[in-house]
Amino acid sequence: MSLSQGTHERLLKAAEEAMKRAYVPYSKFQVGAALLDAEGNVHYGCNIENAAYSPTNCAERTALFRAIADGHAAGSFKAIAVIGDTPGPITPCGVCRQVISELCSPDMPVIMGNLKGDIRVSTVSELLPGAFTPRDLEYGKKDNSVD
Amino acid sequence: MSLSQGTHERLLKAAEEAMKRAYVPYSKFQVGAALLDAEGNVHYGCNIENAAYSPTNCAERTALFRAIADGHAAGSFKAIAVIGDTPGPITPCGVCRQVISELCSPDMPVIMGNLKGDIRVSTVSELLPGAFTPRDLEYGKKDNSVD
Amino acid sequence: MSLSQGTHERLLKAAEEAMKRAYVPYSKFQVGAALLDAEGNVHYGCNIENAAYSPTNCAERTALFRAIADGHAAGSFKAIAVIGDTPGPITPCGVCRQVISELCSPDMPVIMGNLKGDIRVSTVSELLPGAFTPRDLEYGKKDNSVD
Amino acid sequence: MSLSQGTHERLLKAAEEAMKRAYVPYSKFQVGAALLDAEGNVHYGCNIENAAYSPTNCAERTALFRAIADGHAAGSFKAIAVIGDTPGPITPCGVCRQVISELCSPDMPVIMGNLKGDIRVSTVSELLPGAFTPRDLEYGKKDNSVD
Repeated sequence: MSLSQGTHERLLKAAEEAMKRAYVPYSKFQVGAALLDAEGNVHYGCNIENAAYSPTNCAERTALFRAIADGHAAGSFKAIAVIGDTPGPITPCGVCRQVISELCSPDMPVIMGNLKGDIRVSTVSELLPGAFTPRDLEYGKKDNSVD
Repeated sequence: MSLSQGTHERLLKAAEEAMKRAYVPYSKFQVGAALLDAEGNVHYGCNIENAAYSPTNCAERTALFRAIADGHAAGSFKAIAVIGDTPGPITPCGVCRQVISELCSPDMPVIMGNLKGDIRVSTVSELLPGAFTPRDLEYGKKDNSVD
Repeated sequence: MSLSQGTHERLLKAAEEAMKRAYVPYSKFQVGAALLDAEGNVHYGCNIENAAYSPTNCAERTALFRAIADGHAAGSFKAIAVIGDTPGPITPCGVCRQVISELCSPDMPVIMGNLKGDIRVSTVSELLPGAFTPRDLEYGKKDNSVD
Repeated sequence: MSLSQGTHERLLKAAEEAMKRAYVPYSKFQVGAALLDAEGNVHYGCNIENAAYSPTNCAERTALFRAIADGHAAGSFKAIAVIGDTPGPITPCGVCRQVISELCSPDMPVIMGNLKGDIRVSTVSELLPGAFTPRDLEYGKKDNSVD
Protein backbone atom coordinates (compact mmCIF):
# COMPACT_ATOMS: atom_id res chain seq x y z
CA MET A 1 0.00 0.00 0.00
CA SER A 2 1.41 3.34 -0.99
CA LEU A 3 -0.12 6.81 -0.87
CA SER A 4 0.77 10.02 -2.64
CA GLN A 5 2.60 12.81 -0.83
CA GLY A 6 -0.59 14.83 -1.26
CA THR A 7 -2.57 12.27 0.72
CA HIS A 8 0.01 12.37 3.52
CA GLU A 9 -0.38 16.11 3.77
CA ARG A 10 -4.17 16.01 3.58
CA LEU A 11 -4.32 13.50 6.42
CA LEU A 12 -1.87 15.43 8.59
CA LYS A 13 -3.93 18.58 8.01
CA ALA A 14 -7.06 16.73 9.14
CA ALA A 15 -5.20 15.39 12.18
CA GLU A 16 -4.08 18.93 13.05
CA GLU A 17 -7.71 20.04 12.92
CA ALA A 18 -8.75 17.21 15.26
CA MET A 19 -5.90 18.12 17.63
CA LYS A 20 -7.73 21.31 18.65
CA ARG A 21 -10.50 19.25 20.25
CA ALA A 22 -8.15 17.37 22.59
CA TYR A 23 -9.32 17.16 26.21
CA VAL A 24 -6.01 17.57 28.04
CA PRO A 25 -6.48 19.33 31.39
CA TYR A 26 -3.65 17.30 32.97
CA SER A 27 -0.81 17.13 30.44
CA LYS A 28 -1.75 20.16 28.29
CA PHE A 29 -0.34 18.00 25.48
CA GLN A 30 -2.66 17.91 22.45
CA VAL A 31 -2.55 15.13 19.86
CA GLY A 32 -4.68 14.67 16.74
CA ALA A 33 -5.21 11.75 14.40
CA ALA A 34 -6.93 11.13 11.06
CA LEU A 35 -7.83 7.69 9.75
CA LEU A 36 -8.47 7.05 6.05
CA ASP A 37 -11.06 4.38 5.25
CA ALA A 38 -11.52 2.30 2.08
CA GLU A 39 -14.10 4.74 0.69
CA GLY A 40 -11.74 7.68 1.07
CA ASN A 41 -13.47 9.19 4.10
CA VAL A 42 -11.54 10.53 7.07
CA HIS A 43 -12.27 9.71 10.75
CA TYR A 44 -10.98 12.24 13.27
CA GLY A 45 -9.53 11.55 16.71
CA CYS A 46 -7.96 13.46 19.58
CA ASN A 47 -6.56 12.50 22.96
CA ILE A 48 -8.91 12.54 25.96
CA GLU A 49 -7.39 12.46 29.44
CA ASN A 50 -8.63 11.40 32.85
CA ALA A 51 -7.76 12.49 36.39
CA ALA A 52 -6.89 8.85 37.06
CA TYR A 53 -4.46 8.76 34.09
CA SER A 54 -4.93 5.11 33.06
CA PRO A 55 -8.38 5.57 31.46
CA THR A 56 -6.83 8.20 29.13
CA ASN A 57 -7.41 7.54 25.42
CA CYS A 58 -5.02 8.61 22.67
CA ALA A 59 -5.93 10.28 19.38
CA GLU A 60 -5.13 7.26 17.21
CA ARG A 61 -7.39 5.00 19.24
CA THR A 62 -10.24 7.52 19.24
CA ALA A 63 -10.13 7.58 15.42
CA LEU A 64 -10.01 3.78 15.11
CA PHE A 65 -12.69 3.04 17.71
CA ARG A 66 -15.19 5.45 16.15
CA ALA A 67 -14.61 4.04 12.66
CA ILE A 68 -15.26 0.50 13.92
CA ALA A 69 -18.42 1.75 15.67
CA ASP A 70 -19.52 3.20 12.32
CA GLY A 71 -19.35 -0.25 10.78
CA HIS A 72 -15.94 -0.26 9.10
CA ALA A 73 -14.26 -3.65 9.19
CA ALA A 74 -10.95 -4.33 10.94
CA GLY A 75 -8.28 -4.56 8.24
CA SER A 76 -10.10 -2.28 5.79
CA PHE A 77 -8.33 0.99 6.61
CA LYS A 78 -5.88 2.66 4.22
CA ALA A 79 -3.73 4.93 6.42
CA ILE A 80 -3.58 6.75 9.73
CA ALA A 81 -1.90 10.10 10.41
CA VAL A 82 -0.95 11.43 13.83
CA ILE A 83 0.35 14.86 14.79
CA GLY A 84 1.50 16.67 17.93
CA ASP A 85 3.79 19.49 19.00
CA THR A 86 6.95 17.40 19.32
CA PRO A 87 10.61 18.10 18.40
CA GLY A 88 10.53 15.49 15.61
CA PRO A 89 7.50 13.72 14.11
CA ILE A 90 5.37 12.33 16.98
CA THR A 91 5.24 8.55 17.33
CA PRO A 92 2.30 6.49 18.59
CA CYS A 93 2.61 5.06 22.12
CA GLY A 94 2.83 1.30 22.60
CA VAL A 95 -0.85 1.00 23.51
CA CYS A 96 -1.86 2.62 20.22
CA ARG A 97 0.59 0.48 18.27
CA GLN A 98 -1.08 -2.59 19.77
CA VAL A 99 -4.54 -1.33 18.78
CA ILE A 100 -3.37 -0.33 15.29
CA SER A 101 -1.85 -3.83 14.91
CA GLU A 102 -5.16 -5.43 15.85
CA LEU A 103 -7.34 -3.33 13.55
CA CYS A 104 -5.12 -2.53 10.56
CA SER A 105 -3.09 -4.58 8.08
CA PRO A 106 0.65 -4.93 8.81
CA ASP A 107 1.75 -2.91 5.77
CA MET A 108 -0.68 -0.01 6.24
CA PRO A 109 1.14 3.37 6.27
CA VAL A 110 1.37 5.31 9.54
CA ILE A 111 2.09 8.98 8.81
CA MET A 112 3.70 10.87 11.69
CA GLY A 113 4.13 14.63 11.81
CA ASN A 114 4.67 17.66 14.01
CA LEU A 115 3.68 21.32 13.86
CA LYS A 116 6.94 22.32 12.18
CA GLY A 117 6.12 20.26 9.11
CA ASP A 118 8.45 17.32 9.77
CA ILE A 119 7.01 14.08 8.36
CA ARG A 120 7.96 10.44 8.79
CA VAL A 121 6.13 7.52 7.20
CA SER A 122 6.36 4.00 8.56
CA THR A 123 4.15 0.90 8.57
CA VAL A 124 2.16 -0.86 11.26
CA SER A 125 4.56 -3.79 11.45
CA GLU A 126 7.67 -1.61 11.54
CA LEU A 127 6.29 0.24 14.57
CA LEU A 128 5.47 -2.97 16.49
CA PRO A 129 7.91 -5.58 15.18
CA GLY A 130 6.89 -9.14 15.99
CA ALA A 131 3.56 -8.03 17.45
CA PHE A 132 1.68 -10.27 19.87
CA THR A 133 -1.21 -11.60 17.81
CA PRO A 134 -4.51 -13.49 18.06
CA ARG A 135 -2.65 -16.58 16.80
CA ASP A 136 -0.38 -16.50 19.85
CA LEU A 137 -3.37 -16.13 22.15
CA GLU A 138 -5.27 -19.04 20.58
CA TYR A 139 -2.30 -21.41 20.65
CA GLY A 140 -1.64 -21.15 24.37
CA LYS A 141 -5.16 -21.52 25.78
CA LYS A 142 -5.20 -23.98 28.63
CA ASP A 143 -8.33 -26.09 28.86
CA ASN A 144 -7.28 -27.29 32.26
CA SER A 145 -6.69 -23.81 33.63
CA VAL A 146 -8.02 -23.14 37.11
CA ASP A 147 -10.78 -20.56 37.02
CA MET B 1 -31.88 16.10 34.93
CA SER B 2 -34.76 13.86 34.09
CA LEU B 3 -35.73 12.26 30.81
CA SER B 4 -38.97 10.78 29.61
CA GLN B 5 -39.49 7.04 29.46
CA GLY B 6 -39.66 7.46 25.69
CA THR B 7 -36.17 8.91 25.62
CA HIS B 8 -34.88 5.97 27.66
CA GLU B 9 -36.30 3.55 25.14
CA ARG B 10 -35.06 5.51 22.15
CA LEU B 11 -31.51 5.57 23.53
CA LEU B 12 -31.56 1.86 24.39
CA LYS B 13 -32.78 1.12 20.86
CA ALA B 14 -29.87 3.14 19.43
CA ALA B 15 -27.45 1.33 21.75
CA GLU B 16 -28.82 -2.03 20.57
CA GLU B 17 -28.17 -0.97 16.99
CA ALA B 18 -24.55 0.00 17.84
CA MET B 19 -24.09 -3.34 19.61
CA LYS B 20 -24.13 -5.14 16.26
CA ARG B 21 -20.87 -3.45 15.25
CA ALA B 22 -18.95 -4.70 18.29
CA TYR B 23 -15.52 -6.16 17.50
CA VAL B 24 -15.41 -9.07 19.95
CA PRO B 25 -13.37 -11.97 18.56
CA TYR B 26 -12.13 -12.92 22.06
CA SER B 27 -15.09 -12.64 24.42
CA LYS B 28 -17.94 -12.90 21.86
CA PHE B 29 -19.68 -10.51 24.26
CA GLN B 30 -21.26 -7.58 22.40
CA VAL B 31 -22.08 -4.29 24.11
CA GLY B 32 -23.63 -1.14 22.63
CA ALA B 33 -23.94 2.42 23.91
CA ALA B 34 -25.73 5.60 22.85
CA LEU B 35 -24.84 9.05 24.14
CA LEU B 36 -27.29 11.96 23.98
CA ASP B 37 -25.75 15.40 23.48
CA ALA B 38 -27.16 18.84 24.30
CA GLU B 39 -28.53 19.30 20.78
CA GLY B 40 -30.45 16.03 20.93
CA ASN B 41 -28.09 14.08 18.68
CA VAL B 42 -27.02 10.54 19.46
CA HIS B 43 -23.42 9.25 19.38
CA TYR B 44 -23.03 5.49 18.94
CA GLY B 45 -20.45 3.22 20.57
CA CYS B 46 -19.59 -0.47 20.72
CA ASN B 47 -16.89 -2.50 22.45
CA ILE B 48 -13.67 -3.19 20.55
CA GLU B 49 -11.37 -5.91 21.85
CA ASN B 50 -7.67 -6.64 21.51
CA ALA B 51 -5.63 -9.87 21.60
CA ALA B 52 -3.67 -8.30 24.46
CA TYR B 53 -6.89 -7.63 26.44
CA SER B 54 -5.84 -4.41 28.22
CA PRO B 55 -6.13 -2.13 25.15
CA THR B 56 -9.80 -3.20 24.82
CA ASN B 57 -12.27 -0.32 24.70
CA CYS B 58 -15.84 -0.52 25.98
CA ALA B 59 -18.97 0.77 24.24
CA GLU B 60 -19.58 3.64 26.64
CA ARG B 61 -16.06 5.00 26.17
CA THR B 62 -16.25 4.70 22.39
CA ALA B 63 -19.39 6.87 22.41
CA LEU B 64 -17.89 9.47 24.74
CA PHE B 65 -14.50 9.69 23.03
CA ARG B 66 -16.02 10.23 19.58
CA ALA B 67 -18.36 12.94 20.86
CA ILE B 68 -15.44 14.81 22.44
CA ALA B 69 -13.50 14.45 19.16
CA ASP B 70 -16.49 16.00 17.39
CA GLY B 71 -16.17 19.10 19.56
CA HIS B 72 -18.74 18.48 22.29
CA ALA B 73 -17.67 19.84 25.66
CA ALA B 74 -17.10 17.69 28.74
CA GLY B 75 -20.10 18.16 31.01
CA SER B 76 -22.52 18.98 28.19
CA PHE B 77 -24.03 15.51 27.68
CA LYS B 78 -27.61 14.68 28.66
CA ALA B 79 -27.67 10.88 29.08
CA ILE B 80 -25.92 7.66 28.15
CA ALA B 81 -27.55 4.29 27.52
CA VAL B 82 -25.76 0.94 27.53
CA ILE B 83 -27.07 -2.48 26.55
CA GLY B 84 -25.79 -6.07 26.46
CA ASP B 85 -27.07 -9.62 26.64
CA THR B 86 -26.95 -9.94 30.44
CA PRO B 87 -29.31 -11.59 32.96
CA GLY B 88 -30.31 -8.19 34.40
CA PRO B 89 -29.60 -4.71 33.01
CA ILE B 90 -25.89 -4.51 32.12
CA THR B 91 -23.76 -2.18 34.26
CA PRO B 92 -20.71 -0.17 33.11
CA CYS B 93 -17.31 -1.48 34.24
CA GLY B 94 -15.22 0.59 36.64
CA VAL B 95 -13.05 1.99 33.84
CA CYS B 96 -16.10 3.35 32.05
CA ARG B 97 -17.54 4.73 35.28
CA GLN B 98 -14.28 6.67 35.76
CA VAL B 99 -14.45 8.05 32.21
CA ILE B 100 -18.16 8.91 32.53
CA SER B 101 -17.34 10.69 35.83
CA GLU B 102 -14.66 12.75 34.11
CA LEU B 103 -16.73 13.77 31.09
CA CYS B 104 -20.32 13.97 32.39
CA SER B 105 -22.06 15.80 35.21
CA PRO B 106 -22.64 13.84 38.45
CA ASP B 107 -26.44 13.80 38.13
CA MET B 108 -26.56 12.77 34.44
CA PRO B 109 -28.75 9.69 33.93
CA VAL B 110 -27.14 6.38 32.98
CA ILE B 111 -29.72 4.06 31.40
CA MET B 112 -28.86 0.37 31.61
CA GLY B 113 -30.71 -2.36 29.73
CA ASN B 114 -30.56 -5.89 28.38
CA LEU B 115 -32.04 -7.73 25.42
CA LYS B 116 -35.04 -8.93 27.45
CA GLY B 117 -36.23 -5.37 27.98
CA ASP B 118 -35.14 -4.95 31.60
CA ILE B 119 -34.23 -1.34 32.34
CA ARG B 120 -32.51 0.34 35.26
CA VAL B 121 -31.76 4.05 35.51
CA SER B 122 -29.07 5.44 37.78
CA THR B 123 -26.82 8.51 37.83
CA VAL B 124 -23.11 9.01 37.29
CA SER B 125 -22.41 9.68 40.96
CA GLU B 126 -24.49 6.73 42.17
CA LEU B 127 -22.41 4.40 39.99
CA LEU B 128 -19.08 5.73 41.25
CA PRO B 129 -19.75 7.06 44.75
CA GLY B 130 -17.06 9.40 46.04
CA ALA B 131 -15.22 9.38 42.71
CA PHE B 132 -11.54 10.31 42.52
CA THR B 133 -11.57 13.77 40.95
CA PRO B 134 -9.31 16.44 39.42
CA ARG B 135 -9.53 18.32 42.73
CA ASP B 136 -7.90 15.38 44.53
CA LEU B 137 -5.16 15.20 41.93
CA GLU B 138 -4.37 18.93 42.10
CA TYR B 139 -4.24 19.04 45.89
CA GLY B 140 -1.59 16.38 46.31
CA LYS B 141 0.95 17.44 43.70
CA LYS B 142 4.43 17.41 45.13
CA ASP B 143 6.68 20.14 43.80
CA ASN B 144 9.68 18.47 45.36
CA SER B 145 8.94 15.07 43.84
CA VAL B 146 11.90 13.25 42.35
CA ASP B 147 11.56 12.97 38.61
CA MET C 1 -15.51 -9.02 57.80
CA SER C 2 -14.51 -6.47 60.38
CA LEU C 3 -11.10 -5.28 61.48
CA SER C 4 -9.95 -3.46 64.59
CA GLN C 5 -9.17 0.26 64.50
CA GLY C 6 -5.56 -0.74 65.21
CA THR C 7 -5.45 -2.78 62.01
CA HIS C 8 -6.80 0.16 60.01
CA GLU C 9 -4.02 2.36 61.32
CA ARG C 10 -1.32 -0.26 60.79
CA LEU C 11 -2.36 -0.71 57.16
CA LEU C 12 -2.54 3.02 56.49
CA LYS C 13 0.94 3.40 58.01
CA ALA C 14 2.24 0.69 55.66
CA ALA C 15 0.50 2.38 52.72
CA GLU C 16 2.14 5.69 53.65
CA GLU C 17 5.52 3.96 53.62
CA ALA C 18 4.84 2.52 50.14
CA MET C 19 3.76 5.97 48.93
CA LYS C 20 7.35 7.19 49.08
CA ARG C 21 8.33 4.80 46.29
CA ALA C 22 5.77 6.15 43.82
CA TYR C 23 7.11 6.83 40.33
CA VAL C 24 5.27 10.03 39.46
CA PRO C 25 7.33 12.26 37.17
CA TYR C 26 4.20 13.52 35.38
CA SER C 27 1.55 14.17 38.04
CA LYS C 28 3.84 14.53 41.08
CA PHE C 29 0.91 12.89 42.88
CA GLN C 30 2.05 10.03 45.13
CA VAL C 31 -0.29 7.25 46.27
CA GLY C 32 0.44 4.23 48.46
CA ALA C 33 -1.47 1.04 49.19
CA ALA C 34 -1.19 -1.90 51.58
CA LEU C 35 -3.00 -5.19 51.11
CA LEU C 36 -3.58 -7.61 54.01
CA ASP C 37 -3.56 -11.30 53.13
CA ALA C 38 -5.12 -14.24 54.96
CA GLU C 39 -1.86 -15.02 56.81
CA GLY C 40 -1.62 -11.46 58.14
CA ASN C 41 1.16 -10.36 55.79
CA VAL C 42 1.13 -7.00 54.06
CA HIS C 43 1.77 -6.40 50.33
CA TYR C 44 2.91 -2.90 49.39
CA GLY C 45 1.96 -0.92 46.30
CA CYS C 46 2.56 2.55 44.85
CA ASN C 47 1.48 4.31 41.67
CA ILE C 48 3.76 4.09 38.64
CA GLU C 49 3.18 6.52 35.79
CA ASN C 50 3.99 6.52 32.09
CA ALA C 51 4.68 9.30 29.57
CA ALA C 52 1.77 7.87 27.57
CA TYR C 53 -0.60 8.13 30.57
CA SER C 54 -2.81 5.11 29.84
CA PRO C 55 -0.25 2.45 30.86
CA THR C 56 -0.06 4.10 34.32
CA ASN C 57 -0.70 1.72 37.23
CA CYS C 58 -2.25 2.77 40.54
CA ALA C 59 -1.05 1.80 44.01
CA GLU C 60 -3.98 -0.50 44.79
CA ARG C 61 -3.44 -2.52 41.62
CA THR C 62 0.30 -2.80 42.20
CA ALA C 63 -0.39 -4.33 45.63
CA LEU C 64 -3.01 -6.75 44.31
CA PHE C 65 -1.08 -7.86 41.22
CA ARG C 66 2.07 -8.65 43.20
CA ALA C 67 0.12 -10.64 45.80
CA ILE C 68 -1.49 -12.74 43.06
CA ALA C 69 1.96 -13.27 41.49
CA ASP C 70 3.14 -14.52 44.90
CA GLY C 71 0.49 -17.23 44.83
CA HIS C 72 -2.31 -15.72 46.90
CA ALA C 73 -5.76 -16.71 45.66
CA ALA C 74 -8.33 -14.24 44.38
CA GLY C 75 -10.92 -13.78 47.12
CA SER C 76 -8.52 -14.60 49.97
CA PHE C 77 -7.55 -11.04 50.93
CA LYS C 78 -8.69 -9.44 54.20
CA ALA C 79 -8.40 -5.67 53.60
CA ILE C 80 -6.76 -3.01 51.48
CA ALA C 81 -5.68 0.46 52.58
CA VAL C 82 -4.93 3.39 50.29
CA ILE C 83 -3.47 6.78 51.14
CA GLY C 84 -2.61 10.01 49.33
CA ASP C 85 -2.27 13.74 49.99
CA THR C 86 -5.92 14.63 49.34
CA PRO C 87 -8.33 17.06 51.09
CA GLY C 88 -10.44 14.18 52.44
CA PRO C 89 -9.63 10.45 52.48
CA ILE C 90 -8.45 9.44 48.99
CA THR C 91 -10.76 7.13 47.02
CA PRO C 92 -9.73 4.47 44.50
CA CYS C 93 -10.29 5.30 40.83
CA GLY C 94 -12.82 3.30 38.82
CA VAL C 95 -10.14 1.10 37.25
CA CYS C 96 -8.91 0.04 40.68
CA ARG C 97 -12.45 -0.53 41.92
CA GLN C 98 -12.96 -2.91 38.98
CA VAL C 99 -9.76 -4.80 39.80
CA ILE C 100 -10.57 -4.92 43.53
CA SER C 101 -14.04 -6.26 42.63
CA GLU C 102 -12.48 -9.01 40.54
CA LEU C 103 -9.89 -10.12 43.09
CA CYS C 104 -11.53 -9.46 46.48
CA SER C 105 -14.78 -10.47 48.15
CA PRO C 106 -17.65 -7.93 48.00
CA ASP C 107 -17.69 -7.28 51.75
CA MET C 108 -13.90 -6.83 52.16
CA PRO C 109 -13.03 -3.54 53.88
CA VAL C 110 -11.36 -0.76 51.88
CA ILE C 111 -9.63 1.69 54.21
CA MET C 112 -9.11 5.15 52.75
CA GLY C 113 -6.95 7.83 54.34
CA ASN C 114 -4.99 11.01 53.78
CA LEU C 115 -1.87 12.58 55.30
CA LYS C 116 -3.91 14.62 57.79
CA GLY C 117 -5.20 11.47 59.47
CA ASP C 118 -8.72 11.44 58.02
CA ILE C 119 -10.01 7.87 57.64
CA ARG C 120 -13.01 6.41 55.86
CA VAL C 121 -13.85 2.71 55.73
CA SER C 122 -16.08 1.26 53.03
CA THR C 123 -16.48 -2.11 51.31
CA VAL C 124 -15.69 -3.36 47.84
CA SER C 125 -19.35 -3.54 46.82
CA GLU C 126 -20.19 -0.11 48.23
CA LEU C 127 -17.45 1.43 46.07
CA LEU C 128 -18.61 -0.27 42.86
CA PRO C 129 -22.34 -0.86 43.32
CA GLY C 130 -23.78 -3.40 40.90
CA ALA C 131 -20.34 -4.25 39.50
CA PHE C 132 -19.99 -5.84 36.08
CA THR C 133 -19.09 -9.45 36.84
CA PRO C 134 -17.85 -12.67 35.24
CA ARG C 135 -21.44 -13.93 35.35
CA ASP C 136 -22.55 -11.09 33.07
CA LEU C 137 -19.70 -11.83 30.68
CA GLU C 138 -20.49 -15.55 30.50
CA TYR C 139 -24.19 -15.06 29.92
CA GLY C 140 -23.87 -12.87 26.85
CA LYS C 141 -21.28 -14.78 24.85
CA LYS C 142 -22.36 -15.15 21.25
CA ASP C 143 -21.36 -18.41 19.65
CA ASN C 144 -22.33 -17.05 16.27
CA SER C 145 -20.25 -13.90 16.62
CA VAL C 146 -18.24 -12.90 13.60
CA ASP C 147 -14.53 -13.11 14.31
CA MET D 1 24.61 -4.80 28.22
CA SER D 2 25.09 -8.45 27.51
CA LEU D 3 24.20 -11.50 29.56
CA SER D 4 25.43 -15.05 29.44
CA GLN D 5 23.34 -17.79 27.88
CA GLY D 6 23.11 -19.27 31.39
CA THR D 7 21.45 -16.10 32.66
CA HIS D 8 18.92 -16.22 29.82
CA GLU D 9 17.97 -19.74 30.78
CA ARG D 10 17.82 -19.00 34.49
CA LEU D 11 15.47 -16.06 33.90
CA LEU D 12 13.22 -18.01 31.54
CA LYS D 13 13.04 -20.81 34.14
CA ALA D 14 11.97 -18.25 36.77
CA ALA D 15 9.41 -16.82 34.35
CA GLU D 16 8.02 -20.29 33.72
CA GLU D 17 7.61 -20.74 37.47
CA ALA D 18 5.72 -17.43 37.75
CA MET D 19 3.50 -18.45 34.83
CA LYS D 20 1.77 -21.04 37.03
CA ARG D 21 0.30 -18.30 39.20
CA ALA D 22 -1.41 -16.52 36.30
CA TYR D 23 -5.03 -15.52 36.97
CA VAL D 24 -6.59 -16.22 33.57
CA PRO D 25 -10.24 -17.29 33.92
CA TYR D 26 -11.16 -15.58 30.63
CA SER D 27 -8.39 -16.32 28.13
CA LYS D 28 -6.91 -19.44 29.80
CA PHE D 29 -3.65 -18.07 28.40
CA GLN D 30 -0.88 -18.06 31.03
CA VAL D 31 2.16 -15.81 30.79
CA GLY D 32 5.11 -15.48 33.16
CA ALA D 33 7.89 -12.92 33.52
CA ALA D 34 11.10 -12.55 35.51
CA LEU D 35 12.93 -9.25 35.98
CA LEU D 36 16.61 -9.11 36.96
CA ASP D 37 17.62 -6.18 39.16
CA ALA D 38 21.06 -4.58 39.65
CA GLU D 39 21.76 -6.71 42.74
CA GLY D 40 21.07 -9.93 40.86
CA ASN D 41 17.67 -10.59 42.43
CA VAL D 42 14.70 -11.77 40.40
CA HIS D 43 11.18 -10.26 40.55
CA TYR D 44 8.37 -12.54 39.38
CA GLY D 45 5.27 -11.57 37.43
CA CYS D 46 2.25 -13.25 35.85
CA ASN D 47 -0.77 -12.02 33.91
CA ILE D 48 -3.93 -11.16 35.86
CA GLU D 49 -7.18 -10.79 33.94
CA ASN D 50 -10.44 -8.98 34.57
CA ALA D 51 -14.03 -9.63 33.46
CA ALA D 52 -13.96 -6.13 31.94
CA TYR D 53 -10.80 -6.96 29.90
CA SER D 54 -9.18 -3.50 29.89
CA PRO D 55 -8.01 -3.59 33.54
CA THR D 56 -6.07 -6.80 32.74
CA ASN D 57 -2.38 -6.67 33.66
CA CYS D 58 0.36 -8.58 31.82
CA ALA D 59 3.20 -10.56 33.37
CA GLU D 60 5.94 -8.11 32.37
CA ARG D 61 4.14 -5.19 33.97
CA THR D 62 3.44 -7.12 37.16
CA ALA D 63 7.17 -7.81 37.54
CA LEU D 64 8.17 -4.20 36.85
CA PHE D 65 5.53 -2.58 39.03
CA ARG D 66 6.39 -4.73 42.06
CA ALA D 67 10.10 -4.02 41.70
CA ILE D 68 9.45 -0.26 41.60
CA ALA D 69 7.22 -0.62 44.68
CA ASP D 70 10.13 -2.37 46.41
CA GLY D 71 12.29 0.69 45.87
CA HIS D 72 14.26 -0.19 42.73
CA ALA D 73 14.93 2.81 40.51
CA ALA D 74 13.63 3.16 36.97
CA GLY D 75 16.55 2.47 34.63
CA SER D 76 18.39 0.19 37.06
CA PHE D 77 17.15 -3.17 35.77
CA LYS D 78 19.42 -5.61 33.93
CA ALA D 79 17.06 -7.84 31.93
CA ILE D 80 13.49 -9.12 31.66
CA ALA D 81 12.39 -12.55 30.50
CA VAL D 82 8.89 -13.47 29.35
CA ILE D 83 7.44 -16.88 28.52
CA GLY D 84 4.15 -18.32 27.31
CA ASP D 85 2.81 -21.29 25.39
CA THR D 86 3.15 -19.78 21.91
CA PRO D 87 4.25 -21.27 18.55
CA GLY D 88 7.46 -19.18 18.57
CA PRO D 89 8.97 -17.16 21.41
CA ILE D 90 6.22 -14.98 22.93
CA THR D 91 6.54 -11.22 22.40
CA PRO D 92 5.40 -8.48 24.79
CA CYS D 93 2.23 -6.58 23.83
CA GLY D 94 2.46 -2.89 22.96
CA VAL D 95 1.28 -1.80 26.40
CA CYS D 96 4.12 -3.72 28.05
CA ARG D 97 6.63 -2.40 25.53
CA GLN D 98 5.58 1.14 26.49
CA VAL D 99 5.99 0.36 30.21
CA ILE D 100 9.34 -1.38 29.65
CA SER D 101 10.48 1.68 27.64
CA GLU D 102 9.54 3.97 30.50
CA LEU D 103 11.21 1.96 33.27
CA CYS D 104 14.21 0.31 31.58
CA SER D 105 17.18 1.54 29.56
CA PRO D 106 16.88 1.31 25.75
CA ASP D 107 19.60 -1.32 25.37
CA MET D 108 18.38 -3.63 28.16
CA PRO D 109 17.91 -7.21 26.92
CA VAL D 110 14.40 -8.64 26.61
CA ILE D 111 14.50 -12.44 26.58
CA MET D 112 11.50 -14.10 24.96
CA GLY D 113 10.75 -17.80 25.13
CA ASN D 114 8.12 -20.49 24.84
CA LEU D 115 7.50 -23.90 26.43
CA LYS D 116 9.26 -25.72 23.59
CA GLY D 117 12.56 -24.06 24.42
CA ASP D 118 12.65 -21.51 21.58
CA ILE D 119 14.49 -18.36 22.64
CA ARG D 120 14.80 -14.92 21.08
CA VAL D 121 16.73 -12.01 22.57
CA SER D 122 16.04 -8.41 21.64
CA THR D 123 16.39 -5.01 23.29
CA VAL D 124 13.88 -2.51 24.63
CA SER D 125 14.45 -0.05 21.77
CA GLU D 126 14.26 -2.73 19.09
CA LEU D 127 10.83 -3.77 20.37
CA LEU D 128 9.45 -0.22 20.41
CA PRO D 129 11.43 1.68 17.76
CA GLY D 130 11.19 5.46 18.09
CA ALA D 131 9.24 5.21 21.35
CA PHE D 132 7.10 8.10 22.54
CA THR D 133 9.10 9.56 25.43
CA PRO D 134 8.90 12.03 28.32
CA ARG D 135 10.88 14.50 26.15
CA ASP D 136 8.07 14.51 23.59
CA LEU D 137 5.48 15.05 26.28
CA GLU D 138 7.37 17.97 27.87
CA TYR D 139 7.99 19.74 24.57
CA GLY D 140 4.38 19.99 23.52
CA LYS D 141 2.75 21.22 26.72
CA LYS D 142 0.40 24.08 26.02
CA ASP D 143 0.25 26.68 28.76
CA ASN D 144 -2.72 28.27 27.11
CA SER D 145 -4.62 25.01 26.79
CA VAL D 146 -8.31 25.14 27.62
CA ASP D 147 -9.03 23.11 30.71
